[in-house]
This record gives sequence, structure tokens and C-alpha cells, in this order.
Amino acid sequence: MPDSFPPGSAGLVVPEVHRFDSPLELSCGRSLPAFELVVETYGELNAARSNAVLICHALSGHHHAAGFHGSEDARPGWWDHYIGPGKPIDTETFYVVCLNNIGGCHGSTGPRSLNPETGRPWGKHFPPLRVRDWVKSQALLADRLGIEQWAAVVGGSLGGMNAMRWAVEHPERVRHCLVIASAMKLTAQNIAFNEIARRAIRSDPDFRDGDFAEQGVVPRNGLALARMVGHVTYLSDALMGLRFGRELRSGSLQRGFEAPVQFAVESYLHHQGEKFAEDFDANTYILITKMLDYFDFARDYGDDPVRAFSRAQARFLVVAFSSDWRFAPERSREIVRALVAANRDVSHACIESDMGHDAFLLPNSRYEALFRAYMGRVAGTC
Amino acid sequence: MPDSFPPGSAGLVVPEVHRFDSPLELSCGRSLPAFELVVETYGELNAARSNAVLICHALSGHHHAAGFHGSEDARPGWWDHYIGPGKPIDTETFYVVCLNNIGGCHGSTGPRSLNPETGRPWGKHFPPLRVRDWVKSQALLADRLGIEQWAAVVGGSLGGMNAMRWAVEHPERVRHCLVIASAMKLTAQNIAFNEIARRAIRSDPDFRDGDFAEQGVVPRNGLALARMVGHVTYLSDALMGLRFGRELRSGSLQRGFEAPVQFAVESYLHHQGEKFAEDFDANTYILITKMLDYFDFARDYGDDPVRAFSRAQARFLVVAFSSDWRFAPERSREIVRALVAANRDVSHACIESDMGHDAFLLPNSRYEALFRAYMGRVAGTC
Repeated sequence: MPDSFPPGSAGLVVPEVHRFDSPLELSCGRSLPAFELVVETYGELNAARSNAVLICHALSGHHHAAGFHGSEDARPGWWDHYIGPGKPIDTETFYVVCLNNIGGCHGSTGPRSLNPETGRPWGKHFPPLRVRDWVKSQALLADRLGIEQWAAVVGGSLGGMNAMRWAVEHPERVRHCLVIASAMKLTAQNIAFNEIARRAIRSDPDFRDGDFAEQGVVPRNGLALARMVGHVTYLSDALMGLRFGRELRSGSLQRGFEAPVQFAVESYLHHQGEKFAEDFDANTYILITKMLDYFDFARDYGDDPVRAFSRAQARFLVVAFSSDWRFAPERSREIVRALVAANRDVSHACIESDMGHDAFLLPNSRYEALFRAYMGRVAGTC
Repeated sequence: MPDSFPPGSAGLVVPEVHRFDSPLELSCGRSLPAFELVVETYGELNAARSNAVLICHALSGHHHAAGFHGSEDARPGWWDHYIGPGKPIDTETFYVVCLNNIGGCHGSTGPRSLNPETGRPWGKHFPPLRVRDWVKSQALLADRLGIEQWAAVVGGSLGGMNAMRWAVEHPERVRHCLVIASAMKLTAQNIAFNEIARRAIRSDPDFRDGDFAEQGVVPRNGLALARMVGHVTYLSDALMGLRFGRELRSGSLQRGFEAPVQFAVESYLHHQGEKFAEDFDANTYILITKMLDYFDFARDYGDDPVRAFSRAQARFLVVAFSSDWRFAPERSREIVRALVAANRDVSHACIESDMGHDAFLLPNSRYEALFRAYMGRVAGTC
């Protein structure tokens, strides 16, 4: 990293901690006596307080969506390509808010935090969450920041579920809802992959039935396996073929015949797994994949998504990616059909991409143009 | 099971062990000093010895393809739907041979067998194999059974790779080659899933670096995880949706909120995993998935499948299934294109099915009709 930040960067950002001292009643019937949210903001809230955009993160995301924490950072935030001055979510126009959600492991109250009742880390005893609990805590944050209505709530994957839930839980507080590479509920196959990941974690001897933190160990191997499963399913077959093909690490099959890892794709995956295991919390992984599994947008509306969306006042943008087989384009079309039937204003695009589910995070000129155009429309309503 | 076998069953079958006392030179440069093959046969070899059909099993298959081992058996062999009197592979017409291949764990020489040099199980020290080593051992079996030329070599998945290799290694010994739900080589995604399964096994503390058998333990959890990964990828998203949907085991989300397993698909998968872990050998799983990864039909022919297939004299049937995303229809079309370019006689069909890769094992009327018709053609050449 150079001393100055690249052009279009949100620049140096400093996360803030917001503490909430009233109990947060959760969907499961339990409550958090108090909680903290780690938050980043980019841009300035305008005088009318009408230009705030909430960014909702996905399974492994966090508050650091854009910019840099220091000049030594190897990389910027996870959605830096789309957030910054002059970028689709233009921080010269919008006041952008991104937080690490409760249950997370990047500073907000979650399994790594101390349970005030026991003085020990919550660990596996952290209450199970549903996406609406995130919405509830985010609404308290909006109150704190003086944001009555979001210009837009934006999210990909689980973040898109989060955004949809906002639109129906607080219809008057969401002007635009951007749902990217998401679904109204997971398929059985999705749940199956999540459960394989959870079993991999639980069966790591260092998981210690969820008490690894207290016992000073980390279930690295289980986390790495979980990430490897996730990672393969977030990429497309075509992309893996392009990136790795069947390239051999050893150069020749015969030479590497008895080596445990022979193909480039294998070492890449192991590397991704190890990296993830370095800083992600195993209890958070279990907790958040369960949130994904539970999420069923229309369950409380008689399983009728049209009825659910009829509550919404927001305008919608729904984006899918052609090679995403984990949150397939058909899942986005289901959302669009329900929105249309509910007479909501909806724009929809399925973007050609061979990047699989990860496409929502990655550079893509058509996606970028669409995103920019739609956010221009949002800016017109600020 | 009733006392008598169902109509169309191959009936009571008794596996035979064939011992070969000459060393088997393997592709890796090592050799097996001797080896045993467990074999089942159904039907009778005709006087001209022209009606023999070789069945090649896939990753988790074995010699028991049809009929029953006893009247108490809960189920028949793994391909019983397609092998038996009056079935597509009609045992009143054909002499059908199915064996457990070397490296397997169902009685043939493999990691569970004793290494004569040490007097201890081979375990992880069993030599790495390639599909051509299977062909070599199968050719010795054919010699032993007096079969100069197979009327057909038939296989699905890895078995299809086995069949293709036969057709080019021993062109004069294969009259028809049936390649079902297979591919000339795995994709990077396939390799990735296999490596995840292997890592799950290797990281089970009971794997003991491959020495579990000697130490009297079984890496059940790793095997179960490996099977779960495999199983999800052998089914289609649509099929899992049809079979399980998002049905909750507890009946209600709230009641099951903190249960580790909530959805029917999860308990199904765990059950499949446990069942598999009961009798499959972990070293065999690693060994055979590596065979799958290594397999590259045209590697020794300048990466030119047309050149490779030009050696073949057999007629081919290539079958794919529409929802198979592990061995996608496009992989079969690649085989067909190469065969056509090599001027071989090839029939091809992509069968509509929502059963995913597993379709090649399961009842399907179009598949059955096609299989029957093609085997009728094979019978005409006996």
C-alpha cells in the first residue's frame, strides 16, 4: 500500500463501537441484556438525513466494507469495489453505514463476547438468532444515528435476506431495497451444504462441544473444512475450470503420485480454509449458517410472499448472476414474481457472469453499470 | 424378503474369490506380489464364449451388482434394477461378470488386506492405483474365465472411465462399450469436492494417519462427512427439494430452535453418512477418489481424445442425465464428439431425470428402454 489511498477509495476509516444498554428481546424468546455494534460509516449524513444507505453483510462479512484501516492494509474492505467516492454507492452522495451484526465475530456482541451473567465467553450459549433480530438491532442503530428512513438498504446473499426483512418489518423506513444474489429461503441442497460445514466444525476435537475459547484452543481444521465446502459452492464449475483447470502442483502426475495434494485447485482450497480459520469464530459460523437455514421470508405471512411484500413501501432492485448455483437466478425470479404480484416497483437483472455466487462481491462491468444507474435513481430521491 | 426371490431377480448369488499369484505391475512403478478378486457372475457363458458382459463399479460399488446373498437380505445388489432375467442386461442372454476391484474394501485385495511383506494390513501403504491398473487386473480375470472378448464392458461414473480405458487398452477385446454418466476427466470442481472429502477423513483423529485398522479404530466421522459431501453432489437440487423440501423434523421451528438438526434433509444426510461409515474403508476412499482425480482419458495420447478413441474397435453407447451436475451432460457430449471425430460408431442419449448423478443407478423408464434396446443390439452380436 502506498502512503496515499487509491483514487476512488473511501480512504482511512475508523470503526466505531456503539453500545446499547437496554435489553434486546430476541425471536427465540431470550434476550441480550446489552449489546455492542461495531460500525463503519463512509460519507456524510446530509441535513435532511435522507441519504443514508445501510449495507448488510453476508455469512462471513463484517463492518469493514470499504476503505482502509491503515496504510499497511494489504486490501481494502470487502465491497470496496462498489463503495467509495465516484463508485456505484457513491460516498460523495450517500452516507453509508455498515456494521458487524450481533452474533458475529468481528467486534460486535457475539459468541466471543463475555456473557455478563457468567463472566465467561458466550460461546455456544449465545442465543440463536433470526434475521429479524439483526433488523431489530440495526433499527436501534438507525435511531442512534438519527436516521428515520434509509435511502436504501442493500445486501447480497444473507445480506439480501436482511434487506428484504427490513422492507417488510419497517416499511416506512426503507425507500429502496437492493436484494442481490439472494433468495426468499434456502433450498434443501443449501441446507445440506451448511449442515456438512457445521458437522465438520462440531467434529473437530478442538471444538470441545463449543467451549474451545474457554479451553484456549481453536477448531481450525473444522473451520477450514467448513470454508472449503462453502467456497466450492460459491464458485462456479466453469470458473474453477478457468482458474485452475487440472493443473498439477508437481508439474507431473508421476512425480506427485503419492503426494497428498496434487492439483492446484486443492492447494488453493486448503489455503482459503486455513486463512478463514485464522480469524473466524466457529460458534459464529454455526449460528449464522443456522440463521440462513431458518430464514423463510413468507413463513409468518401464511407462506404467501405476495402478502409479505404487500407490506413493503420500498422500491426494489433484484439482481442475480447467471452462474450462481447456490442462490440461483430462479430464486431471484421468485422474488420478482412476488413483488410484481404485490404491485411493488421492481427492477430486475440477471447478470452474465462465470463467477458463481461470489459474483456479487467481484468486479463486473454490467453489474457495476446497473448498480450505478440504480443508485443514481436512489440519489434522486434523497 | 420372502423365501423365494422376486420375479426378474438374478436370485441367490455366491461370490467367488479368484486368486492370482503372479505379480501385478502397477502404473505407479510398484507391484502387487499377488492379488485376489471377489467376483459374482450371473447367467451362463455360451459355448462360443461370446456373451460375456463386464460390469465396472463406481467409487463406492463392489462385486454384488445383482441378486441376493441370502433370503434375509434387505436389498439386492446395487444394479439389480438393470441386471437379471428379462432385465436390460438380461442374464438369460448374457454371462454377466462383476468384481470388486483391487484397492476396494469388499473382499478384493486392497488397503484392508495383509501386506505379505509386513504381515500387517496395507492401510495407507497400499500402492496408488490408476484406472488402467483395474483394466489390467480385469483382463487377467477375463483370461481366467476364458473370455477372449467382452460382448460389452459397461460402467457408470468411475465405471464408465474404466469401460473407456478398456476400449483403448484392449481394442480387440471389447465389442461394445457402455459409458454412463461419466467423463473423460474430472473438472476442478469435482477434484475440489473429492479433496474436501479426503481432508474430512484425514482430519478425523481416528484416522491415525491411515493406521486406524492396526490401532483398532475407525474414522467414522470423517467417512460420514466424506459420504455426506459426496451424497449432496450426487443428487440434484431439484430432487432434494422434492424429497425433503424444508420439512422440519420437530414440526415447528420454535420448538426445534436450539436442536442441532432441524431439517429432514439434515437427518437424512447424517443417516447416509453413518451407514456408509459402518463398512467402507477410509484408505480405500482416499485411494479411489485419487483414481478419479488422476483419470485423464487422453493424457497419454497427446491430450487428444480423438487419437485415443481412434484405437478403439468397440461400438459405443454414451448416456448422460439432465440433472447430473457432477458428471454433467456436457462431459458426455465431449466423449460423443471425440468418438464421432474418430469415426467410431456411437449412440448417445441425455435422459431427462431429476435424480442427479445417482440417476444411473435408479429406475427410470426411458433409461431402461434405451438400455434394453442397446443390449438387444449387443445380443445380436453374440
